[in-house]
Amino acid sequence: MADAIRHDKTARQLRLLSDALDSGRLGPVRRMVNTLAPAEIGNLLESLPPAQRSVVWGLVDAEDDGEVLLHVGDEVRESLIADMDTDELVAAVEDLDIDDLADLVEDLPDAVIEQVLVAMDRENRDRLEQVLSYDEDTAGRLMNPDVVTVRADTNVDVVLRYLRLRGELPDNTDHLYVVNRRHQLLGWVALQDLVTHDPGTPLNQLIDDELDSIHVDETAQEVARQFSDHDWVSAPVVDDGNVLLGRITVDDVLDIIREQAEHQALSAAGLDEDEDLFSPVPRAVRGRVVWLGINLCTAFLAASVIGQFEGTIEKIVALAVLMPIVAGIGGNAAVQVLTLMVRGLALGQVGGSNARILMWKEIRVALINGVLIGGLVGLIALAWFRDWELSLVIAAAMIINFSFAAFAGVLVPLLLKRMNVDPAVAGTVVVTAVTDVMGFLSFLGLATLFLLH
Amino acid sequence: MADAIRHDKTARQLRLLSDALDSGRLGPVRRMVNTLAPAEIGNLLESLPPAQRSVVWGLVDAEDDGEVLLHVGDEVRESLIADMDTDELVAAVEDLDIDDLADLVEDLPDAVIEQVLVAMDRENRDRLEQVLSYDEDTAGRLMNPDVVTVRADTNVDVVLRYLRLRGELPDNTDHLYVVNRRHQLLGWVALQDLVTHDPGTPLNQLIDDELDSIHVDETAQEVARQFSDHDWVSAPVVDDGNVLLGRITVDDVLDIIREQAEHQALSAAGLDEDEDLFSPVPRAVRGRVVWLGINLCTAFLAASVIGQFEGTIEKIVALAVLMPIVAGIGGNAAVQVLTLMVRGLALGQVGGSNARILMWKEIRVALINGVLIGGLVGLIALAWFRDWELSLVIAAAMIINFSFAAFAGVLVPLLLKRMNVDPAVAGTVVVTAVTDVMGFLSFLGLATLFLLH
Repeated sequence: MADAIRHDKTARQLRLLSDALDSGRLGPVRRMVNTLAPAEIGNLLESLPPAQRSVVWGLVDAEDDGEVLLHVGDEVRESLIADMDTDELVAAVEDLDIDDLADLVEDLPDAVIEQVLVAMDRENRDRLEQVLSYDEDTAGRLMNPDVVTVRADTNVDVVLRYLRLRGELPDNTDHLYVVNRRHQLLGWVALQDLVTHDPGTPLNQLIDDELDSIHVDETAQEVARQFSDHDWVSAPVVDDGNVLLGRITVDDVLDIIREQAEHQALSAAGLDEDEDLFSPVPRAVRGRVVWLGINLCTAFLAASVIGQFEGTIEKIVALAVLMPIVAGIGGNAAVQVLTLMVRGLALGQVGGSNARILMWKEIRVALINGVLIGGLVGLIALAWFRDWELSLVIAAAMIINFSFAAFAGVLVPLLLKRMNVDPAVAGTVVVTAVTDVMGFLSFLGLATLFLLH
Repeated sequence: MADAIRHDKTARQLRLLSDALDSGRLGPVRRMVNTLAPAEIGNLLESLPPAQRSVVWGLVDAEDDGEVLLHVGDEVRESLIADMDTDELVAAVEDLDIDDLADLVEDLPDAVIEQVLVAMDRENRDRLEQVLSYDEDTAGRLMNPDVVTVRADTNVDVVLRYLRLRGELPDNTDHLYVVNRRHQLLGWVALQDLVTHDPGTPLNQLIDDELDSIHVDETAQEVARQFSDHDWVSAPVVDDGNVLLGRITVDDVLDIIREQAEHQALSAAGLDEDEDLFSPVPRAVRGRVVWLGINLCTAFLAASVIGQFEGTIEKIVALAVLMPIVAGIGGNAAVQVLTLMVRGLALGQVGGSNARILMWKEIRVALINGVLIGGLVGLIALAWFRDWELSLVIAAAMIINFSFAAFAGVLVPLLLKRMNVDPAVAGTVVVTAVTDVMGFLSFLGLATLFLLH
């Protein structure tokens, strides 16, 4: 951890920048900002309150503007775009790659889009339209149509001469794609093989035709899985007829994986992934109040269960003291099972075939944990209230609630997935509703049955 | 989502495999398994119960064994290694890259390590020792010492001839490193530039010397950040004297990012990241019971607060019905703030300089949400219990608890970080302890003051 802090460059930069801004000397700020990569500038802008953000944004080199816009969340992006006039925006985005431009297009004012389209040549305009025709979060939307292709019936020397004529290659080009006349993908040749084989080597000796290509309709998540399973740097995207449409590179995949992880963490707390640290207060309120309202419904559901036992609580007030323990610890146990299931589902490791085995395993874990934790709670309750009957009731209620926690933890994510609801988002609310209701019901119910003499 | 399911290859494979295993015909299983990439086989093995896992592991091609071992969690890896004899293990791991071997070494039996070391040449043995001398989760442990270096005073043609003599390059080689006699890093040359420039081009025209290299002591997290900020495929690792020690490639970075995301999700629920879907029951119990015990402490803390107000609850039982709502919704609000802060801290966007501004913003959000949600709860309570004083008390208690939720949500992660505790792991327990205690205290306290006539 000492290392983590020492190398926490962004935090250090932020402090330096903030000091420089406070002192009002913008020269050092400009110099500092423009030594950073665009993604780092984006990160820095996200960490500044709106007023400072606007000042720093004005100091960023115009040539980095487009790349910086790509590397910030939607809310911050909107605020940065609002600070720019049409000419600045056109200049910032017109040189971006097609896939990056497609990524930004929805946030740009119409006037800017029109001017960019007019400035493009016809080929690029067609490519942009093609990319935009695919759904967001599919391979088609992620791909860059700019690929380098060669024919099979040639040799290394000819290819090298072609590449020298062509000049610069697209970023992260590690393979050339081999296509036929109809632009169907036949295989690929690694740049590494081109530079390690004699000029006279026929190309078809170097072609790898066992490649897995990516179908244009594949989801971003599946694309990310394939990249990390196969250790790809880039991969070709094809349509139903195996025609090569473009390529996806690993830098985009890094972004996908990061965004998915963030999305899961934030949406599990009912937050919009684009909520910015410095979102305006009304916006932050709107973003969060819905989630709190949903949780309120489940809280009243649990309260209504307690309401059924008012008479019992009136007689034995210790029940009111202890009941949140039964519900709360049951919720913790359920969230543990849920978290394992959500990971298993995301990795495709849980299906109909092993769900029953998992359920049986979790029930056994729950019974043992229920006996251990329930027993401990029973002992503490005995020491506190000197009532061994109460103590038995709470231990029994905890064992029952642990079992429901295991059931809910396994079944709820499977059901949510079948209903096309993301278990990572909705799972916690549902399983804790189950453990709250069952916790109060079992504890107060058993107490009503056995403690009211 | 329909697409997500259609492309859910692992789940489909799992079903097919499970059917084939059930039918007892191992031929099709073997054929199916060996069309998969090692990472996919690893994923599949993780999703199988121990008995089936052992059968399928026996069918995997021996040449894939080492790579598969690299791609499974620690628990599953142990069970796979336990299924192999020494000779099989030596054969599986001896051809792995140095960084991969370093990754496995701790899990291998001593006899295997000895034999592998004996079979290695001296250079590789020294390299392995060097890699193992660095802390886990640092750049030194992640790097592969196998790098291709060239001198600056040469040209493209000479380099290409050298590469043809050298033959195969390490995986994901996109740059050659330029070093001086003392092996200090001077810059790098992209393979892309080698193939697009004339043979006579002097190499120093192609050298990029503005590179950011990675220091050997950097944390894995910082390495991952740099890769995704700079869109690198590979990057050189150097020591304090700028001597080139090795290189890190993006495929390792993908693994780091995935593992970090998993680690956060699992450890936030108090789970060990290596807990396997089919962990033996005693192991799963051990892994979870500690966390439940910690939560039990905070639950008893909250219960002891309630215990102070037994007399009040005895007189107004409605308090027992409503009190979990105040505590629970306060907890949800606190977790929202905490989640934003944890993301901000992980990205280095939150520091001393903006913490006060964030706190002020969150207090305002909390007051508005408190008035909205607290007001709603007050109205529902009024309709339920027909007692406007009770209704005012619960609304006030919720506004107070929302404020504490904002304080705790901002301050707790900052304090935990200063204490070198990961806020993603410990944050939720602490902030919900605050909102439980403050929720019960404010609600029952206000009720005692104003409702007991």
